[in-house]
Amino acid sequence: MDPLSSRRPRRTALTNAVLTIVAERGLDQVSVREVAATAGVSIGTVQHYFPTKDDMLLAAFNDVVQRIRQRISSLCAGPHVRNNLSAVLHQLLPLDDERAAESRIVLAFAARAATSPALAGVQQTILTEITGALTDAFALAAAHATTDRCRLAAHIALAATDGLALHAASTHGWISASQLSTTLDFLLDMLLPTTEPGYAITP
Amino acid sequence: MDPLSSRRPRRTALTNAVLTIVAERGLDQVSVREVAATAGVSIGTVQHYFPTKDDMLLAAFNDVVQRIRQRISSLCAGPHVRNNLSAVLHQLLPLDDERAAESRIVLAFAARAATSPALAGVQQTILTEITGALTDAFALAAAHATTDRCRLAAHIALAATDGLALHAASTHGWISASQLSTTLDFLLDMLLPTTEPGYAITP
Repeated sequence: MDPLSSRRPRRTALTNAVLTIVAERGLDQVSVREVAATAGVSIGTVQHYFPTKDDMLLAAFNDVVQRIRQRISSLCAGPHVRNNLSAVLHQLLPLDDERAAESRIVLAFAARAATSPALAGVQQTILTEITGALTDAFALAAAHATTDRCRLAAHIALAATDGLALHAASTHGWISASQLSTTLDFLLDMLLPTTEPGYAITP
Repeated sequence: MDPLSSRRPRRTALTNAVLTIVAERGLDQVSVREVAATAGVSIGTVQHYFPTKDDMLLAAFNDVVQRIRQRISSLCAGPHVRNNLSAVLHQLLPLDDERAAESRIVLAFAARAATSPALAGVQQTILTEITGALTDAFALAAAHATTDRCRLAAHIALAATDGLALHAASTHGWISASQLSTTLDFLLDMLLPTTEPGYAITP
């Protein structure tokens, strides 16, 4: 058996353990000892794959980003770009337990990235990819809009979505799932009214 | 001298030390030892005011929230509500070094609040106050808008502002100060066009 491919499942089990700890107890509870206990392996095994806590966090954040990347790949596929746009942004909101856990994780890594250049690099890469894909989607949905306006719309849509997710994750229920969804729909209706040409992003 | 008032300056020096550590090195670097070293006092002094790390974080977060509260108090004062609204939201963006440090601090506490009920309570209180004040400001600026639409506009404006601050703080320069400002202005122009009645929040 290829030694590299046999390493992959165990490495993934360890990064999943990191993400479980982050979602349930917060990023500062991640340690080699806690990850070993959660994954059911020895401390030596964790250290074999990840010599430092920073190595573990970087690998776990890359796993999260990879999941988000797979979702946005559907953004410009198919004829209903506006629906795709709405669906992808709704996927980034904590509308069920699974996505609520992901919001806590993404928020924890964003906060850590503020003082970690390695995590900030990953964050910068994924934000660049998402805003690029959103800009293309807005351009497809509003044919007469300039690229500058589509880029502004992309930044607003992503900032509002991430801000809503932050407000929900940091308050435990201050804003309900249906309010999150209604607020995002209201914003998209402003950015892309169903009657063409779109008011906000076409001149 | 009143013993209570004489305690206040030292307590504030300690919470300021907490905030300095959070802004420069991240929230997980806060400890009784580090706060004592940063404030130039003994470990015993820190423990006298704050028996646990959670007590320190809660006091420091309350100090940050108090600063934000003072700013939003100007929101509905004076005749130019739209300008006030814009000015207050711009104050929440990391447009200079001082506000960049504050954005890192606010982001760190928001992430910690996701797994801390005490911090989540403070976060919920300040978000309720800000969205309430923003809702009132939108109602004054767009006289014909319904309260529901003003509340939606308030949620979008605050979510987009906090999301932009998150994107800037977590990437170290991916989005510039002038881009942050332009993006927020574009959103406010959508929510409150200068020609009355406002397109987006009036029926």
